[in-house]
Amino acid sequence: MADSPNCDLKSLSPLQLFEKVTEQGEKVRALKAGKAPKDEIDAAVRMLLSLKLSYKTTTGQDYQAGLPPKDLVLINNGTTKEEDEDLVDPWNVQTSNAKGVDYDKLIVRFGSSKIDTDLINRIERAIGQKPHHFLRRGIFFSHRDMDQVLDAYENKKPFYLYTGRGPSSQAMHVGHLIPFMFTKWLQEVFDVPLVIQLTDDEKYLWKDMTIEKAYEYARENAKDIIACGFDVNKTFIFSDLDYLGTSAGFYKNIVKVQKHVTFNQVKGIFGFTDSDCIGKISFPAIQAAPSFSSSFPQIFNGKENIQCLIPCAIDQDPYFRMTRDVAPRIGHPKPALLHSVFFPALQGAQTKMSASDPNSSIFLTDTPKQIKTKINKHAFSGGRDTIEEHRKYGGNCDVDVSIMYLTFFLEDDDRLEQLKQAYTSGELLTGELKKVLIETMQPLVAAHQERRKQVTDEIVKQFMTPRKLAFEF
Amino acid sequence: MADSPNCDLKSLSPLQLFEKVTEQGEKVRALKAGKAPKDEIDAAVRMLLSLKLSYKTTTGQDYQAGLPPKDLVLINNGTTKEEDEDLVDPWNVQTSNAKGVDYDKLIVRFGSSKIDTDLINRIERAIGQKPHHFLRRGIFFSHRDMDQVLDAYENKKPFYLYTGRGPSSQAMHVGHLIPFMFTKWLQEVFDVPLVIQLTDDEKYLWKDMTIEKAYEYARENAKDIIACGFDVNKTFIFSDLDYLGTSAGFYKNIVKVQKHVTFNQVKGIFGFTDSDCIGKISFPAIQAAPSFSSSFPQIFNGKENIQCLIPCAIDQDPYFRMTRDVAPRIGHPKPALLHSVFFPALQGAQTKMSASDPNSSIFLTDTPKQIKTKINKHAFSGGRDTIEEHRKYGGNCDVDVSIMYLTFFLEDDDRLEQLKQAYTSGELLTGELKKVLIETMQPLVAAHQERRKQVTDEIVKQFMTPRKLAFEF
Repeated sequence: MADSPNCDLKSLSPLQLFEKVTEQGEKVRALKAGKAPKDEIDAAVRMLLSLKLSYKTTTGQDYQAGLPPKDLVLINNGTTKEEDEDLVDPWNVQTSNAKGVDYDKLIVRFGSSKIDTDLINRIERAIGQKPHHFLRRGIFFSHRDMDQVLDAYENKKPFYLYTGRGPSSQAMHVGHLIPFMFTKWLQEVFDVPLVIQLTDDEKYLWKDMTIEKAYEYARENAKDIIACGFDVNKTFIFSDLDYLGTSAGFYKNIVKVQKHVTFNQVKGIFGFTDSDCIGKISFPAIQAAPSFSSSFPQIFNGKENIQCLIPCAIDQDPYFRMTRDVAPRIGHPKPALLHSVFFPALQGAQTKMSASDPNSSIFLTDTPKQIKTKINKHAFSGGRDTIEEHRKYGGNCDVDVSIMYLTFFLEDDDRLEQLKQAYTSGELLTGELKKVLIETMQPLVAAHQERRKQVTDEIVKQFMTPRKLAFEF
Repeated sequence: MADSPNCDLKSLSPLQLFEKVTEQGEKVRALKAGKAPKDEIDAAVRMLLSLKLSYKTTTGQDYQAGLPPKDLVLINNGTTKEEDEDLVDPWNVQTSNAKGVDYDKLIVRFGSSKIDTDLINRIERAIGQKPHHFLRRGIFFSHRDMDQVLDAYENKKPFYLYTGRGPSSQAMHVGHLIPFMFTKWLQEVFDVPLVIQLTDDEKYLWKDMTIEKAYEYARENAKDIIACGFDVNKTFIFSDLDYLGTSAGFYKNIVKVQKHVTFNQVKGIFGFTDSDCIGKISFPAIQAAPSFSSSFPQIFNGKENIQCLIPCAIDQDPYFRMTRDVAPRIGHPKPALLHSVFFPALQGAQTKMSASDPNSSIFLTDTPKQIKTKINKHAFSGGRDTIEEHRKYGGNCDVDVSIMYLTFFLEDDDRLEQLKQAYTSGELLTGELKKVLIETMQPLVAAHQERRKQVTDEIVKQFMTPRKLAFEF
């Protein structure tokens, strides 16, 4: 029996689906009662779960035995989660696996596409240089419509980049730089405009925080982002609280999105409830709107159809699934996406990282000494309990956080490969591996701090002033 | 059996109510099955509907057989409507009474205060002149905190006026002028700043209309509003679609309101459902925000605590009940309100007026001939069927639309009183009364048209440009 019955289920009505789930439930019970072979029961259970998922996707409701579907709604629900699956949405990333989230499963569940060797090779041909190690190493692992962006690029049609950050605190850690490091590389190789949204309004809505504080964090975070080396002539950074009150195009796109998305839909996509404030409920439109070039008339000369490419961590995908659903209905192109994996906490890939726990990662304000202490004390190790065992059996790179961090930050492919092999073979000890990580992170963070010092309030103001960039449209 | 069981139901818990609805449902089924007399079944059905309404009011949920209440919420439901009551909310005004809505009942239901003789006398003392006939004749009949506004005025503390219009079409009728005529008078006697909101975003969200069309209607409606004679140095008119993108303060207040109002609350207040778009759901915050002076930093020099007074038709009160609930929680004073009655359709007070039906009222573009024909042909008459009967029994001023319109537009108190007496006594015939109305409305509309012709695009631009007004703050 096929595990994935979705293809032929699409044509069924909600009621037919309901009956199919009910039938399959009875079949599972019968198999269990009859003590059927385990693999037969497992296959039937998988089929049942899959049917339930189809039912929920189609009706927007959880299957409940004996309660046929009512008030049908079509929702764009890619976040539906089976019991053994990872939880991934804009506010939660949870997995029970020390290796981290199962990204292949996530691609299937979200309906995105894997960034495979063919696509990486195509990018290499298009830009005429070696792709970023984030691409080569699967850190950016999933996409939507990247082929179309490359088609456009090869046909000399313009596109632009859009990424963002929720300024929830002043404390940014090295993981927060991933999308910006990658976006900077994309901007350089493709030579395109970039807009960076700071969702201070979102943080005000979600957190116990004043508007003033959220805006202050936005400006502080902008300094760290600028310190990544963006070109002020090609980059516009904006705070929602600020830009909404200065743009002729932004609010119009927000209200267009808001007209075309129902509460049922955001409930399905983001899990909002009736007790949520109306600000949260309507916020997704504010993260959607920068995907449309008419939100930036000063940059795109009022043009409405410039293709957008969004590099972001995959937990932000729900916003852009919604955006892509709405785009054609309001006459705009769908934004394309490049999705990254999550950055692991020092304590391991299944630990939730927290900006309020200074030991959960390496922060951009850490001293060399703090970096050394944190890595030595907290970086989860895939090494063995004793040196003897380690030499004999070798370390486990799949769960070792030092290896994970080096995969992000050590640019030298050969060196990384050597380290992995030596650690796996037991030749390299945990202490020695951590030393390599310390020596990688210390200069990286110090250089960032040095660049950040140069970012004056005046420079922040330049980046955040709505203006024409160095591109003609 | 009492039809209206709500009094003793208030003390019941949601679950007890749920059980009562279930019981009553079973009773109705039993009566129907037993072919009970029609009036007995009808009474039981009425009781069932009433119980279901109580259930919804208490729980915020529709009753669903077999599904007991969950996630209880307290909602701010002032619009709850008993079966024999008028329906009044921002989108519906319905009454079965030819005299129109029962405003005394509405005051009790909405929890506002009646504008009584004491208050009118106090206004007269404060301004040192005779109050507007809209006040004297009960056209503005209800208020919230008008005493506080007068306290402030007497203590030389500033306040400002805020009113608005939803630009749903180019066609405005004479009834649409009521709030503006009254607001103009208020502005003149109190000498205060005035802001006028044109909710073009609302119309885009609610109607099948493009953003461009909604904005065009806003500008066209602004011309009719300006033609009422507002002083450009003291008045700021704004379209939401426009002003949101040019104001540093407006969006911040919107998002503050949006943080402090839940979907449950707007569901209770405005009757939104899960199928409504997120734009509608969050819109109430946009109508709320101009109640706070910090939405207009250019007028109030950034001051956050200037008292606001809102003259509006009472159907807009739900927005401001919500605003007044939120205001203290975000550190702003509650806006005060002055509520007007509804303007009746020519066909009578219980007919819904429609901008798409040219015969439902006198439009601001009507020619003298059109006005004459409409009044003669369509104005609902309280007169008798024959001249003889009319002379003998007299006309009924309470349902006569000509008398109603004259109450709005004939400024001469003595003349109006004479007309009413003569009509009631039968001395004045319907045709004669209509002639007076025609002679009142023709010059009024012609004068408006003359003034509107003077309103150039340049003048509209002046009114709609964010700027300092002729007041120091």
